[in-house]
Amino acid sequence: MFAITIPNPGGPAALVLDEAPVPDLAPGSVLVKVHTAGVNRADILQRQGHYDPPEGATRIPGLEVSGTIIELGAEVTDWEVGQHVAALLTGGGYAEIVDVPAGQLLPVPENLTLQEAAALPEALCTVHSNVFAAARLLPGEWLLAHGGGSGIGTAAIQLARALGAKVAVTVGSQRKADFCTELGADAVINYREEDFVERIRAITAADQEAAGARPGADVILDLIGAKYLERNIKALSDDGRLMIIGLQGGVKAEINLNALMRARKSVMGTTLRARPGRQKAAIVEQVRRDVWPLVADGTIKPIIHSVLPLADAGEAQQLLENGDSIGKVLLDVEGVR
Amino acid sequence: MFAITIPNPGGPAALVLDEAPVPDLAPGSVLVKVHTAGVNRADILQRQGHYDPPEGATRIPGLEVSGTIIELGAEVTDWEVGQHVAALLTGGGYAEIVDVPAGQLLPVPENLTLQEAAALPEALCTVHSNVFAAARLLPGEWLLAHGGGSGIGTAAIQLARALGAKVAVTVGSQRKADFCTELGADAVINYREEDFVERIRAITAADQEAAGARPGADVILDLIGAKYLERNIKALSDDGRLMIIGLQGGVKAEINLNALMRARKSVMGTTLRARPGRQKAAIVEQVRRDVWPLVADGTIKPIIHSVLPLADAGEAQQLLENGDSIGKVLLDVEGVR
Repeated sequence: MFAITIPNPGGPAALVLDEAPVPDLAPGSVLVKVHTAGVNRADILQRQGHYDPPEGATRIPGLEVSGTIIELGAEVTDWEVGQHVAALLTGGGYAEIVDVPAGQLLPVPENLTLQEAAALPEALCTVHSNVFAAARLLPGEWLLAHGGGSGIGTAAIQLARALGAKVAVTVGSQRKADFCTELGADAVINYREEDFVERIRAITAADQEAAGARPGADVILDLIGAKYLERNIKALSDDGRLMIIGLQGGVKAEINLNALMRARKSVMGTTLRARPGRQKAAIVEQVRRDVWPLVADGTIKPIIHSVLPLADAGEAQQLLENGDSIGKVLLDVEGVR
Repeated sequence: MFAITIPNPGGPAALVLDEAPVPDLAPGSVLVKVHTAGVNRADILQRQGHYDPPEGATRIPGLEVSGTIIELGAEVTDWEVGQHVAALLTGGGYAEIVDVPAGQLLPVPENLTLQEAAALPEALCTVHSNVFAAARLLPGEWLLAHGGGSGIGTAAIQLARALGAKVAVTVGSQRKADFCTELGADAVINYREEDFVERIRAITAADQEAAGARPGADVILDLIGAKYLERNIKALSDDGRLMIIGLQGGVKAEINLNALMRARKSVMGTTLRARPGRQKAAIVEQVRRDVWPLVADGTIKPIIHSVLPLADAGEAQQLLENGDSIGKVLLDVEGVR
């Protein structure tokens, strides 16, 4: 089969389309013929040599795909050959065929094309597992999601709104601000022009006062890390929860523990990829139960910036790196031959 | 009435026994004639001028008492004059009479004396709200509690064991180690002689491996803060939760966010005193439902180091500061006249 390989880590040109062996089919897994693959920031870190795949995982990048089941492994009973699926992966999505633990499969709803379905698994699983399962955002509470225009951000806006919460996002351009407002964001903050701490406090002040709490977000979904840590903690209301899922702004920072204690704030970091298989399966199951019906009825829509040929994976990753894209960048894998 | 006042913050002598007005009785509160008051570290910080009472609270120190209800405020229907109670306070415990919101009262079980009952509210509410309600310690998981000989530590050992978890504690002396072992701790670490990170990893290795996780505690209850932050994070297993309830080792520290992300660790800070009344009432309600039956049947016992006259409150606080006490230091308030 064809697949993207990384013979030597580095810039976009480090991604090389090459022949690779079809993956082994493990018990409890299925082989999926890939239609479309999603591009994620973790793929870029892997290309640069900063993010080795977990032990035992393929070295082919790619954390989500859509496609068709072509073979069932032993012990797989709930799925059929020929079924259209979306899948959360530990790697291997930039390839014609990928093996997927059955617990990480989602059926493609009738209202979505196979291409659209590839835009959803990573973003919805990340948002649901962090904002809802871990941070337990409640209806009526305020979520602040940084990077409102990203795949994660656009998923966060839709999911928070669908589940009855209020959502503010930060963005870096007026174009993204307009898009996020249109998508349903209750408030949009342009971080290049405004101080997000002051703004989120002002935005949430009335609601928090009514709840007997100080101004700020109840939950923050952050992909910046160190550079934002102090400000994120300040931007939280009482009992606020900061979920860090990316470190684009660095790894180490000073933390004021008294600022946590006096208002019962918490800081948690997660990555979806490093979770053990049983946790990935549990997350996919929760998404299938709580979120997938909202996808099937059109409440939550895949937001797709562009679809590039698999051979242009480097260019696709650059679109993400440039920061101008809104929604997901996808790779057309089926068309590689 | 007699009460301890703090005319000028400072050392133990700053605590002065004086006349003070009987507190007003607010709607929804009761007046309690105090039998015994518990001494807590927050009282020492207040005496030193480092911890102002929350807005609207009395300036008389004291966060827990036992005693007898002598008057009911408007809207109080579930309690009776003459009833023996233990109470969680926002302040005012070092006094002959204190007003207590009805939601912060606990009935004294038949198997306890009034004196013994004063040793429980703050420790049990702190441990339950942090270790169980917030950090959700599960049966079979490992708790590491720093300061195993303290009021909090001895409560944590008993509560964790009673609810089916395993518990390791750190202590500073062999005498405390022996006491904690006798009380039910599964493992005891002398922090003066051993590295607690290495030790907790070794202690938990087999259980965590069986659970598919890295060695370490699932939950840590910490009262040191900055000085222990890095080591506490290292001492956590995957999905581990660090609960900081004291800052004896400083306020500010560097944090490595990648160390959180790769194993999904979280850091949360809380203080019981700063919580709004509705949260205190919810915590007391949970303690009454989940913990109080274990007190009533003798599974969880008050651990009392010593009882001093109210007039010797400074000496009582010094016992805590010296760090040699095991269990609670109490003040005999009834005997003040």
